[in-house]
Amino acid sequence: MNQSAYYRWWQRDDLCYQQGQLSFAGYKVANLARQFGTPVFVYSAARLRENLLRLHQALHAAGLAGRSSLCYAMKANRFAPLLTFLKQTGLCGIDACSPGEVEHAVSCGFAPAEISFTASSLSAQDLAVLARYDGLFMDCDSLHAIRRWGALKPGTAIGIRVNPGMGISRAANARLQYAGDVTTKFGIYEEQFEQALELAASFDLRVAKIHFHTGCGYLTPQLAQLEKIIAHCLRFVERAGQVERVNIGGGLGVPHVADDEPLDLDQWAQVLARQFRDRALHIEIEPGDYIAKDAGLLLLSTTFAEQKKTTWFAGVNAGFNIAPEPAYYSLPFQPLPLVYSDDLPCQQVAVVGNINEALDVWYEQALLPCLREDDVLAFINAGAYSAAMASNHCMRGQFKEFLLF
Amino acid sequence: MNQSAYYRWWQRDDLCYQQGQLSFAGYKVANLARQFGTPVFVYSAARLRENLLRLHQALHAAGLAGRSSLCYAMKANRFAPLLTFLKQTGLCGIDACSPGEVEHAVSCGFAPAEISFTASSLSAQDLAVLARYDGLFMDCDSLHAIRRWGALKPGTAIGIRVNPGMGISRAANARLQYAGDVTTKFGIYEEQFEQALELAASFDLRVAKIHFHTGCGYLTPQLAQLEKIIAHCLRFVERAGQVERVNIGGGLGVPHVADDEPLDLDQWAQVLARQFRDRALHIEIEPGDYIAKDAGLLLLSTTFAEQKKTTWFAGVNAGFNIAPEPAYYSLPFQPLPLVYSDDLPCQQVAVVGNINEALDVWYEQALLPCLREDDVLAFINAGAYSAAMASNHCMRGQFKEFLLF
Repeated sequence: MNQSAYYRWWQRDDLCYQQGQLSFAGYKVANLARQFGTPVFVYSAARLRENLLRLHQALHAAGLAGRSSLCYAMKANRFAPLLTFLKQTGLCGIDACSPGEVEHAVSCGFAPAEISFTASSLSAQDLAVLARYDGLFMDCDSLHAIRRWGALKPGTAIGIRVNPGMGISRAANARLQYAGDVTTKFGIYEEQFEQALELAASFDLRVAKIHFHTGCGYLTPQLAQLEKIIAHCLRFVERAGQVERVNIGGGLGVPHVADDEPLDLDQWAQVLARQFRDRALHIEIEPGDYIAKDAGLLLLSTTFAEQKKTTWFAGVNAGFNIAPEPAYYSLPFQPLPLVYSDDLPCQQVAVVGNINEALDVWYEQALLPCLREDDVLAFINAGAYSAAMASNHCMRGQFKEFLLF
Repeated sequence: MNQSAYYRWWQRDDLCYQQGQLSFAGYKVANLARQFGTPVFVYSAARLRENLLRLHQALHAAGLAGRSSLCYAMKANRFAPLLTFLKQTGLCGIDACSPGEVEHAVSCGFAPAEISFTASSLSAQDLAVLARYDGLFMDCDSLHAIRRWGALKPGTAIGIRVNPGMGISRAANARLQYAGDVTTKFGIYEEQFEQALELAASFDLRVAKIHFHTGCGYLTPQLAQLEKIIAHCLRFVERAGQVERVNIGGGLGVPHVADDEPLDLDQWAQVLARQFRDRALHIEIEPGDYIAKDAGLLLLSTTFAEQKKTTWFAGVNAGFNIAPEPAYYSLPFQPLPLVYSDDLPCQQVAVVGNINEALDVWYEQALLPCLREDDVLAFINAGAYSAAMASNHCMRGQFKEFLLF
């Protein structure tokens, strides 16, 4: 990648260089780093809202305004101020996947009826806790879940998570395949669907929703596959009878590198409009990444910059354990200097963390100006699947989080 | 794998079926699960001690008793009772890699002088904290660490972590390569070694130790490569002059599947004896996995067992976030039922967790008897890089730990 591409593709009004200073959410990032210290995650409330509004606008333009809703997948980022802010926007409900997440969402102001619950491998204890939340909508992803929920809540409405045996993934990333050639734990397959319907009927459960989540991180080139999957999943809707809602999962991706084109939301909404045109179905969408990822920066301080063999390395004061996506999922968070101009010469640098593990690499081929110790780097796309997955590995789990208004 | 192999390879006196009941560390595992509940990690103090003694005996048999020492890599498992127990055995010191680890080790009774410190990407603040611990031995892994430590502690003895550009790995596991063809952040390469020595001299630092850690999880077939690496690293020892100690890192592996043969410790110790025969060098070894991994079981309860498509799945009440090795490093923890006999028919089951992620698979092809809900499964090899790396992803981070005497 050349320097110009590295410094252009991610720039937007609220994240850009202004007079050579990196600016985010109306703040000079240098001031944020100075005030908060590092390691720190900063999240932009305005960007979260914009991401939600952009989704709603695309749904509106496709004629789906009155019959669609967004459920934020809180596993992406459960920082309490962020959840509370999302609640107050009124623009989304919640997708939760554990009793702890339900309790936390409710603690941040969401009503149980605003929560769509979809999880796998629920224990009897989990289900007993969930049953206490009146109004919570349960998507059963296995026969055992139908059986147990039916015993707890006979005569209620449920969803069934199905697995169409078809997947969608931006890259051939085996770690992110939820459905496809390999049989996974997710959902009920066509082979067991009849049995699921009979089981539901035996508890007088009404199957009011069909849920399918078949991949993640998709961009425009993957929309054709998304459309095929939806078409296929409508067979489950028909077989189930009186379904009122479908939940098409999340998975809307954001660009991670210069070559990624952003997802064309109008094309995306057109897929939904075409597939659901003749059906009186409410459409639920569960974005996590799309809402939170590009609304977050991770600020880290450099600890050193030196050559090893012939490669330049820059170290920072945190490791992959506080933000596992780059190391574990090969989804890079591009690092940026706080001060930059196009005439500043840059060199290729491997940016690495402070954990004694080989995979503790933040970004292999960053293009950065000459770094001194204690310079701050801003890692973009750090708003989702980062702090929420943090561990204290090597007792290096220290960081702060701030919601910026 | 056939059933007989699945149920034989891991059995040992303190982990086996007795009258059909799984027994560990002198306890019926069923009683532990009943008493503690699940998810729970249980660690055997006796097994930890045995693992240490076995290493010492091999070193003794190879004539290295008076000139070798073990530093437990606490990043593998920092459970305070376990660390305190290890301290009291008197059989090992500590390998630490962060200021937090040093503080924690000292809080569990280790003296700073018993701690060998090796880390990458240390900040000025990290080094200032470390410098407060008199007696702590610092292995500098970069030029910047020498420069900063020299400024803090001129005239003292240090180690230098070197990178021989050669690696050792049981499998072609890119996630576990510390040294080799690709230039990594670890250590000082030959190209910069002269500069490192000059820098040390400029602060009157005496280079008393050469450290190299070049891989992990090695078993007997990898010993030839280990020997080559040691031979190569002795060139650094010679160039450095008055080196008194070498630290050959950790990386001694334990079997994970039936086909793995245990590491032949006598062959391993012979490698050390051959390479260090004519040299008055003290040898430090930093095992983590080898000491803790097979001393731990993870007990989880099954939530369901059912067929999806044509595959049998069993779910359990925790996910990869509380023990990342199987999912992230492809190092499986084999699950065992608490009751078993050879005439019990078993079937192939994919054991999966309760996290909504595709990689949340505990064991793809377990051979288990018919499971009912709320049966307990014991996962072997869960003593290292498990609880220590746990996260609260999806708010599913709940577990307990117990040290068994």
